[in-house]
Amino acid sequence: MITAFGLALAAPGGEQVLFTIFVMFVAAKLAAEIFERLKQPAVAGEILAGVIIGPSVLGLVAPSELTNALSEIGVIFLLFLVGMETKPADIFRVGWRALLVATLGVIAPFIFGYLIMLAWGQSQIEAVFVGAAMVATSVGITARVLGQMGLLNLEVSRIILGAAVIDDILGLLILAVVSSIAKEGGVNYVQIGTTAALAIGFTLLVIMVGARAVSRIRMRVENLKVGQSYLVFGLALCLGLALVASYIGVAAIIGAFLAGMALSESAEGTDMPHQAEAVTEFLLPFFLTNIGMQLKLDALLTRDTIILALIVTVLAVLSKLIGCGAAAWPLGKKKAAQIGMGMVPRGEVGVVVAQIGLSLNAVDASAYGVVLFMAVATTLIAPPFLVKLFKGETRVDEEPEFPVTQIS
Amino acid sequence: MITAFGLALAAPGGEQVLFTIFVMFVAAKLAAEIFERLKQPAVAGEILAGVIIGPSVLGLVAPSELTNALSEIGVIFLLFLVGMETKPADIFRVGWRALLVATLGVIAPFIFGYLIMLAWGQSQIEAVFVGAAMVATSVGITARVLGQMGLLNLEVSRIILGAAVIDDILGLLILAVVSSIAKEGGVNYVQIGTTAALAIGFTLLVIMVGARAVSRIRMRVENLKVGQSYLVFGLALCLGLALVASYIGVAAIIGAFLAGMALSESAEGTDMPHQAEAVTEFLLPFFLTNIGMQLKLDALLTRDTIILALIVTVLAVLSKLIGCGAAAWPLGKKKAAQIGMGMVPRGEVGVVVAQIGLSLNAVDASAYGVVLFMAVATTLIAPPFLVKLFKGETRVDEEPEFPVTQIS
Repeated sequence: MITAFGLALAAPGGEQVLFTIFVMFVAAKLAAEIFERLKQPAVAGEILAGVIIGPSVLGLVAPSELTNALSEIGVIFLLFLVGMETKPADIFRVGWRALLVATLGVIAPFIFGYLIMLAWGQSQIEAVFVGAAMVATSVGITARVLGQMGLLNLEVSRIILGAAVIDDILGLLILAVVSSIAKEGGVNYVQIGTTAALAIGFTLLVIMVGARAVSRIRMRVENLKVGQSYLVFGLALCLGLALVASYIGVAAIIGAFLAGMALSESAEGTDMPHQAEAVTEFLLPFFLTNIGMQLKLDALLTRDTIILALIVTVLAVLSKLIGCGAAAWPLGKKKAAQIGMGMVPRGEVGVVVAQIGLSLNAVDASAYGVVLFMAVATTLIAPPFLVKLFKGETRVDEEPEFPVTQIS
Repeated sequence: MITAFGLALAAPGGEQVLFTIFVMFVAAKLAAEIFERLKQPAVAGEILAGVIIGPSVLGLVAPSELTNALSEIGVIFLLFLVGMETKPADIFRVGWRALLVATLGVIAPFIFGYLIMLAWGQSQIEAVFVGAAMVATSVGITARVLGQMGLLNLEVSRIILGAAVIDDILGLLILAVVSSIAKEGGVNYVQIGTTAALAIGFTLLVIMVGARAVSRIRMRVENLKVGQSYLVFGLALCLGLALVASYIGVAAIIGAFLAGMALSESAEGTDMPHQAEAVTEFLLPFFLTNIGMQLKLDALLTRDTIILALIVTVLAVLSKLIGCGAAAWPLGKKKAAQIGMGMVPRGEVGVVVAQIGLSLNAVDASAYGVVLFMAVATTLIAPPFLVKLFKGETRVDEEPEFPVTQIS
């Protein structure tokens, strides 16, 4: 029967696509509702929804090219929105602190990860990969939590955002080094140097001249005949810089964040942030559930692997708290804790590093499972603590002109 | 080099995804801008952009699971928006006329298509499939053109929308008959009857009780804790009814249209249409370019095939003009022409029927190419004529509360 119906006017495979989208969206929002009622962060609920509908529990949906693509677009739009709330000057003001937070927040997790894996009797290259996977921060999670609390314009929030950008570049370099060791047995310094120069150059270029360039062509954009020309321009810039970033090797979300920052001044007072917010509201659940769907509990079958996964997760949390916290210590204990916890989620970035390690045969299936567990677990653990740590904070400076990302 | 960079923090294949999305979005919007300046409908430009970036010309992108999925979500949201501008009573008022338009608009193209293929010396089953592919209307194209002109609340617009819904159900039944002949050599009347009953029952049920059910639970929805609960509810209803429609065998867009209609009264005065509009604005270009990308010029290599493709296209246009026009004749010549032209685009629906025929070995590669050409060509031809035919019309009744789909 279903085949006969399925034949009808739906594209082949069209139902499967719709089913996946429907299940991910509705599960995420149901979980968000339940978590909100329990006074827990919706973000954690949406990730957990992904665990439940994913292969580990119900098996309704599995990560696929489609879910990964929707997830990527979702987080790109989130960072684009966050960027629009962040002026380049705000980041420059906290630049040195962010650099220090990022650097110590990269060194500590790498060393912790590397040492525990060696101590556990794993190979050198596996230890290096697990270390690398513990380095990168999934800034989308923290940005979403702070955005929902309306706290993106706190000084600590800006330090976290700035540190996440730098962290991403450092993580890129570590991954390039690690990958080149895994593939060629040595480090290609010229290539790494080129990558570093490109990544840093791109970031600085967009921060420095992006806003000016955008405000210079703004009038021209508004004179275009195409409907909603300014929104179209913003979306194109966001996608374009995300693409360039990803060609250079930096995460696409960094490009989107920089595009948002470049637009932050000229978008003020327009309808664009509000519209980009609606797009994000639809797409973000795919990002969050897709993280949870990555969990592979069947890789954690032995008692040893489970223990290792728990230890790695604890170290992943502690190492960011210690590394970033130390760097932020002069700001006071509370801010140090806020910044440290803000850098804890590994999310999709940890998952990607683990996938690369697996594809290079540098990590085996159980180490892969351990990293996935750590990535999902840190992402689930951080939001409730963030909510606690930031409770009672109020916006320190001007009211944002638009309530971007305060949407659930 | 690129491999080294590609290794970095982007998901494997992530760049390709971003590249595809960027190229489709930007090409569509550039073409829309050029067409607007030439005083041509943007819709046609966006479809043509798909032809140019697709396999037939530049080969930058090709239809894939991802582009089909984005396309489907895009047109689902478009019909959801159109539905929100359409009250069930508006459709009931034009019900009989729409039924007549749909019926004659299905019979004429089927007969024309069937006869020309037989006359051309093709097989019976191939003739039947080409006839079936000429039946269905891609209402999204017309809805978009009328929406951009702000004319969705004209009586003729409602007749077109109503007829498109009925047309889709009739097309479903024809396709079910045709497929069952192709597969089993005969017609399974019980199955066809079940399909018909389900499709009609579902449509009537949603139209009859949908709006009342929605307004009854509206307060509950607004009391939910999850952010933007009403938008979330609307999106979930849209995706859910699209999914049910596609399980039953009706096109998913019919479900989305019905969901929009069910919400049309209670959404008035809320921000939801405006937000759903922003989502559509982002996703619709994928629908339009994806249609153009379907074109396979390499199937039209021989002179004979090219001539057949042109004849089929002309007949596809004429048969809808004649069939639907005859049904609408009592409304006057102008309205008959408007309605007939409104039903001309075959778009994605024609493509899907051709794909099914191909997968059942009922049509060969060249007949497939002919149908694809017809589907894309009718979709490109109709918008400029629609603009001409509707020029000078003004909204006949109340101003819409929200400028839905007048965007871009």
